Amino acid sequence: MELEKKQYQIDFSKIRDRVRVFAPATVANMICGFDILGFAVDEPGDEVAMYRVAEPGVRIRSIAGDDGRLPLDADKNTVSACVKMLLAHLGLENELGVEIELTKHMPIGSGLGSSSASTVAGLFAINNLLGDPLSKAELMPFCVEGERIACGHGHADNVAPALMGGITLIRGYSPLDVIDLPVPNELYAGIVFPQVDVPTRDARQLIKQKVLLKDAVTQWGNIAGLIAGLYESDYKLISRSMQDVLIEPTRAILIPEFYEMKRIALSAGALSFGISGSGPSVVAITRGRDVAERATAEIQQHLTGCDIDSLKYVSAVNIGGPKVLG
Amino acid sequence: MELEKKQYQIDFSKIRDRVRVFAPATVANMICGFDILGFAVDEPGDEVAMYRVAEPGVRIRSIAGDDGRLPLDADKNTVSACVKMLLAHLGLENELGVEIELTKHMPIGSGLGSSSASTVAGLFAINNLLGDPLSKAELMPFCVEGERIACGHGHADNVAPALMGGITLIRGYSPLDVIDLPVPNELYAGIVFPQVDVPTRDARQLIKQKVLLKDAVTQWGNIAGLIAGLYESDYKLISRSMQDVLIEPTRAILIPEFYEMKRIALSAGALSFGISGSGPSVVAITRGRDVAERATAEIQQHLTGCDIDSLKYVSAVNIGGPKVLG
Repeated sequence: MELEKKQYQIDFSKIRDRVRVFAPATVANMICGFDILGFAVDEPGDEVAMYRVAEPGVRIRSIAGDDGRLPLDADKNTVSACVKMLLAHLGLENELGVEIELTKHMPIGSGLGSSSASTVAGLFAINNLLGDPLSKAELMPFCVEGERIACGHGHADNVAPALMGGITLIRGYSPLDVIDLPVPNELYAGIVFPQVDVPTRDARQLIKQKVLLKDAVTQWGNIAGLIAGLYESDYKLISRSMQDVLIEPTRAILIPEFYEMKRIALSAGALSFGISGSGPSVVAITRGRDVAERATAEIQQHLTGCDIDSLKYVSAVNIGGPKVLG
Repeated sequence: MELEKKQYQIDFSKIRDRVRVFAPATVANMICGFDILGFAVDEPGDEVAMYRVAEPGVRIRSIAGDDGRLPLDADKNTVSACVKMLLAHLGLENELGVEIELTKHMPIGSGLGSSSASTVAGLFAINNLLGDPLSKAELMPFCVEGERIACGHGHADNVAPALMGGITLIRGYSPLDVIDLPVPNELYAGIVFPQVDVPTRDARQLIKQKVLLKDAVTQWGNIAGLIAGLYESDYKLISRSMQDVLIEPTRAILIPEFYEMKRIALSAGALSFGISGSGPSVVAITRGRDVAERATAEIQQHLTGCDIDSLKYVSAVNIGGPKVLG
């Protein structure tokens, strides 16, 4: 990823003293669109409070909601590392002092774009603190680079929807080509996070590097159908199209009770059901909040019966991405 | 393909004495959408004249424009075989007498959906002769079955756009799911048919049955971008998206001067350039007629310099599909 060489003018009189920002969790792949589609949800998400201080440098004041799993070292923490990257790019790393409070309102390693939410919250917050010198489109490559710092790869299917909100298509990476897709207004997501550990890297390594062309054709027929369905607000077409014949059969193995949860969600009336990102979170995509509430409640009840703890979230597709809380 | 069991009411008083029908050529795949996308063009196409006669049975009276390559035997000819299939389905094969004149205005084995145009012309004509008992949607499975009779496979990426007109997506086959896509009104096709022989079956057999997942991801990112571009009438997005990284590298080997023709088309301002169906016809997709005229003229001039005869066609995307000529 080549970062923009453009010089940004920073007006020091406009730098704010503090800002508090929310950035949303995201559902990468959107069932059938492996590595190219993703959408943001209204909850859960991450919260970053950022303070301008006299002493130059970037420091983490505190992290809440992470059970002590995230590093406080500013070079290792995703939020501070991304802030440092942007400040370095702007030539401000030795001039500005910034302290950060990170509050995780979402589980780590859940397949909900936890690191992307932190990346986007951090970059959106520092840009806002500086008086918004960069547009969202200009922030995007920094978010992708932030994801690379955090995860070791520069996929954009979480950071793009986290930054833009709504449903995004990453058409390609050379150059980065992010397209906003329309969001049918009754589309809801019912997310369940079974509290079992599925590291993203393991989930990726399971996936075969070669696939049958005929399966790829089925998959891209579904992807094309989903895009048309979103433009037409055709929920039946969306439902028929959101099927993953390539990735789900492999990744589902890592997720306990996956096919029973799928059966429950579809019986409850979900348009589709599948894995969020690389899992283990699963998502029921529904028309309307009621179906999402019912599907997640029934899934959670089933998991409880299997002695599996879980968290659930029901949300409309988030519109607008990160927001300034105050 | 399961054909509809529904009974159609045929009103014998409405059966016409004769009908003449045009059905359009089609560009399958639309560069990046292997086996799922296709569009129809205003020219070339096939013409079928159909006559009701007293003696029951289906017969071919004449075929023009085929250089004697097509069979006159009513069981072997695509048009008559499709007509017989539909009449048999309607229980009319021993009651009705039909004679057919077929005029090919397009080359056979050119990658322009020649057999599909004949299939659609024949079925559209007999349906019209009978007083249009079947809707287009009801005719579609018969067209796919006709393609199977003609080519040994039931792909729909030629018959679907030939019957529906415009740009069509075949989302899937179980059941057949054909979706009309929007047609940006400045979209043109400049087609060149280099007169070399590339049988469809050979062209298909060249294609590898397994592909790299990363290439499939690139391809479906492009497909998704193309669908969004069509809905947005975003010609730049359409241009960026219409790239085929999977099939073209293999099939282009069979087409003389392919990469030079591509260079010429893109230099002339085409949005994209690629193989029509399985070739050897190639297509420049352009914004406006002028670019399509210029690209095809320059390509043809180049082929002439290489001692390769060729035909060219410039056309808007066809809207509406087959039409009754009189």
